[in-house]
Amino acid sequence: MLLRMSTLFLRTLREDPVDAEVASHKLLVRAGYVRRAAPGIYTWLPLGLRVLRKVEAIVREEMDAAGFQEVHFPALLPREPYEATNRWTDYGEGIFRLKDRKGADYLLAPTHEEMFTLLVKDLYSSYKDLPLSIYQIQTKYRDEARPRAGLIRGREFVMKDSYSFDVDDAGLERSYAAHREVYVRLFDRLGLDYVIVSAMSGAMGGSRSEEFLHPSDIGEDTFVRSPGGYAANVEAVTTPVPDPLPFDDAPAAHVEDTPDTPTIESLVAVANERFPRADRPWTAADTLKNVVVTLVHPDGTREPLVVGLPGDRDVDAKRLEAAVSPAEVEPFTAEDFAKHPALVRGYIGPQALGAGSASGIRYLLDPRVVDGTRWVTGADEPGRHVFDLVKGRDFDADGTVEAAEVRAGDPAPDGSGPLELARGVEIGHIFALGRRFAEALDLKVLDENGKQVVVTMGSYGIGVTRALAAVAEGNHDELGLVWPRSLAPADVHLVATGKDEAVFTEAERLAADLGAQGLDVLFDDRRKVSPGVKFKDAELIGVPTIVVVGKGLAEGVVEVKDRRSGGSEQVPVGEVVAAVVAATRG
Amino acid sequence: MLLRMSTLFLRTLREDPVDAEVASHKLLVRAGYVRRAAPGIYTWLPLGLRVLRKVEAIVREEMDAAGFQEVHFPALLPREPYEATNRWTDYGEGIFRLKDRKGADYLLAPTHEEMFTLLVKDLYSSYKDLPLSIYQIQTKYRDEARPRAGLIRGREFVMKDSYSFDVDDAGLERSYAAHREVYVRLFDRLGLDYVIVSAMSGAMGGSRSEEFLHPSDIGEDTFVRSPGGYAANVEAVTTPVPDPLPFDDAPAAHVEDTPDTPTIESLVAVANERFPRADRPWTAADTLKNVVVTLVHPDGTREPLVVGLPGDRDVDAKRLEAAVSPAEVEPFTAEDFAKHPALVRGYIGPQALGAGSASGIRYLLDPRVVDGTRWVTGADEPGRHVFDLVKGRDFDADGTVEAAEVRAGDPAPDGSGPLELARGVEIGHIFALGRRFAEALDLKVLDENGKQVVVTMGSYGIGVTRALAAVAEGNHDELGLVWPRSLAPADVHLVATGKDEAVFTEAERLAADLGAQGLDVLFDDRRKVSPGVKFKDAELIGVPTIVVVGKGLAEGVVEVKDRRSGGSEQVPVGEVVAAVVAATRG
Repeated sequence: MLLRMSTLFLRTLREDPVDAEVASHKLLVRAGYVRRAAPGIYTWLPLGLRVLRKVEAIVREEMDAAGFQEVHFPALLPREPYEATNRWTDYGEGIFRLKDRKGADYLLAPTHEEMFTLLVKDLYSSYKDLPLSIYQIQTKYRDEARPRAGLIRGREFVMKDSYSFDVDDAGLERSYAAHREVYVRLFDRLGLDYVIVSAMSGAMGGSRSEEFLHPSDIGEDTFVRSPGGYAANVEAVTTPVPDPLPFDDAPAAHVEDTPDTPTIESLVAVANERFPRADRPWTAADTLKNVVVTLVHPDGTREPLVVGLPGDRDVDAKRLEAAVSPAEVEPFTAEDFAKHPALVRGYIGPQALGAGSASGIRYLLDPRVVDGTRWVTGADEPGRHVFDLVKGRDFDADGTVEAAEVRAGDPAPDGSGPLELARGVEIGHIFALGRRFAEALDLKVLDENGKQVVVTMGSYGIGVTRALAAVAEGNHDELGLVWPRSLAPADVHLVATGKDEAVFTEAERLAADLGAQGLDVLFDDRRKVSPGVKFKDAELIGVPTIVVVGKGLAEGVVEVKDRRSGGSEQVPVGEVVAAVVAATRG
Repeated sequence: MLLRMSTLFLRTLREDPVDAEVASHKLLVRAGYVRRAAPGIYTWLPLGLRVLRKVEAIVREEMDAAGFQEVHFPALLPREPYEATNRWTDYGEGIFRLKDRKGADYLLAPTHEEMFTLLVKDLYSSYKDLPLSIYQIQTKYRDEARPRAGLIRGREFVMKDSYSFDVDDAGLERSYAAHREVYVRLFDRLGLDYVIVSAMSGAMGGSRSEEFLHPSDIGEDTFVRSPGGYAANVEAVTTPVPDPLPFDDAPAAHVEDTPDTPTIESLVAVANERFPRADRPWTAADTLKNVVVTLVHPDGTREPLVVGLPGDRDVDAKRLEAAVSPAEVEPFTAEDFAKHPALVRGYIGPQALGAGSASGIRYLLDPRVVDGTRWVTGADEPGRHVFDLVKGRDFDADGTVEAAEVRAGDPAPDGSGPLELARGVEIGHIFALGRRFAEALDLKVLDENGKQVVVTMGSYGIGVTRALAAVAEGNHDELGLVWPRSLAPADVHLVATGKDEAVFTEAERLAADLGAQGLDVLFDDRRKVSPGVKFKDAELIGVPTIVVVGKGLAEGVVEVKDRRSGGSEQVPVGEVVAAVVAATRG
């Protein structure tokens, strides 16, 4: 394949696009790979489409090699199957919904569990038909509240989604393991670093779920690792629960005046000033902070929720969201406070909370707040706090919630040591679904004994366009993109410089010879464009090997550059093809 | 590629699906190529996806070979560009519209002229950048009122759409011709018969448009051909206008009682009975039929329209729709009659019609109704008709309309002889758009003199999924599908029959040997399935070469069958691979 820059539908930009925050987004736009069509919705230009097809081909090859079979579902789907699994409602505002001319409800599918389940139900009926793993590489839609980072979080994007079907748990375990192995192989081929993290708290039992996170500062996911090998998405981290403490000799709770202490910091200062401890100063960890939020349930109902946690920790919005899903979390506003006079802003205490209280407002505690722990917390009056309030004696709650931030140094839940935190981009997710979808949609097969059994399923996703962006993010320098050879839009970028006709003649010959070797050549054959502009474009576009035919030709040499190392060498014209072939196949 | 029937995600059906009317739909479902997901929306199973990818690959190869460059646009697009060209409104109910969570309007694109125009505007600015032809193979959406015939008229479907950009008319002419040549080549490669017909009446001048129609009885398009080489979609046929007739000696118009004559047939009978002509009997062609319909304009307003035409011809709904587009045509109901008392049902006459009349109802005439023609027509009173009503003397209209049916034997508009009619499936459409979109979206480039000029465009479509269905429609027999080699899901269908282990061993060896020759093998390796079922499946699936390993193996022979001819021969085992290679490459 010979791509001539003189006619290629491409314009590079010297300036970053104004809406781009991350390097991959800036560079993919500047180098002419994609253009924004709407928020979170992108158009692929010829170079970008070539890279996208290469990512897809690698994914497809690895899927096929594992015996998974490719199918293709529509993106526009009727409401009914999603109604049967409750996801029509559970998705809330997160999906695009529409009506056809007859008023029937449709959605643009964000994922296809229901349709795959129904298709297998349509075709298969016996345990002999299983196991089965089928997949598609397809355009998906999510009405993201905050599309960001270009292709990293879009509203129209390409995903590979596969689904496994097994007759029993052991089969699901094998299908899950098979997918996990395929993901390892294909992410390796894509040249993407990844960490496999647990994506579901052990507390939920049964089902397994792991994420493949590409470590990157621009990632939206935070994950933890311990020296002993524990790794989890921060949403999945469970807090080790301390043993309850004895409280027989604890002093009675007492309410004190603490004027102007609406924050933990001001409270600690006043407490140390007016009510100093004998043993040590008060710290934020001695206080119980009660954070109130609004839960918006999928059916639209709004409910206040108070989370009680040690005052030295903040609520982690994503952990809280994961914990209360499918409800969404919104701020508790001044109007909300007006509607709930039991909640005294800045001085909320546990006494006013919980199913058994007069307010009836739901109250969930951080797992560290065990029976016998003593707290300084709000007294439900402005300017007053209560001291020595003992959990299990003076107050209780409606349950616990994993909503407090996880901090570096926190102990791993499995005892494998202190946690360190990092950020990553979710590029893959494997999920042992179990029987939820098969039950909702009545997918059963006959087992060996002629009995109808519900099928057990797995669901496995790869963000194809996101993986491409992650590769770009992890493979660039200040000059531009630096593609791994497996994904580059061409094998070699051949640049002819100057005005000398002999240079262009030789470059044409080289382009043909390199093509004859089966290499894809991006050939900068533009006349009237300066060498400086051509070099800048080549660096921006990021093809791994750059060949420059220019002044050196008079001495019979051509420059062969390695985009990644920046190294270059002068190669005799007659040896260039061999040198490039060696470089590209190296 | 080896596809084993024992694990292939496929179930064939012996019965036709209840919702299928045409052979391609029935067979593609029965043979396990597609499944319906919603009305006009289909899921591709593994075999179907393989064929679809082959069609796409042929389209892509021919586009690329012509120097057209592939890009890829989103399907979900914002309203604004379509607003600028008025198509947001003009599409009426024909497209899917939706809102995002912020209330912004989006559509699922039925075609992408606007986005391509804006992209070229974004990247290009000079005549030196042109000509340019860019294309995509992409999923499109139309909210069809009547999805039908499976993939022939769907609501989610795959199209190849390309767009050309030129600085002047001569350039557009060249780009148009280039696309036309590519279409000829690629439809030839797809093995699809086609007729290239004019798709636009000459009356519109300027722009050119031609359709590639695959002749087929199930087609929705009717086209005409003349012995002299004229070919046009029936919507594009213009009626030769006769010369006006002298009417100085015509008798005065006279109203007569014609009780119970609400139809042309009853009118002709009564006229011959009560008011016989001296020279010959009255015929329907002597009457002027006034057909009233409701036009629904894109903005929702409803307008009555009366079409006057010779009583021996019916209104052709599709010709009328094409003539009044973007308005849509709906029946004129009893309620509508109640609102317009000037229109006497069954007895509507020209005197009550037209912009100058009291009713003001728009009145358009068939082009044959020229000045001097004399008519029997409604007298705007129940049971009465007017005779000798002369066009140009006694009545006139607001213009003419091409809405009368075209009949076999009608003269071609270019004088090339009598027309014959046939039906076809539109598989391609090429359209010299001109400057409409570039003007609406302000796509200009600098010309050689440094002056800003509006770019002129072409738009070129191929229904990829529809072409696949058309191939299936044109290539089947009573047993099943009969794919052309270029599109078959496999090169050879290898069937192992019986229970003899030696048969399966030999078949496995053959499968491997055929694969080693680079052939795609669909291998029926199912145990416990009868030879009869396997043969039926092979005939239904339609791979062109079928190899049966069975009882003959004891005598050292294998059966090689040609699916299309039905012919078969016994081939010595050692020569099978060579025979199959010869057949598939022949």
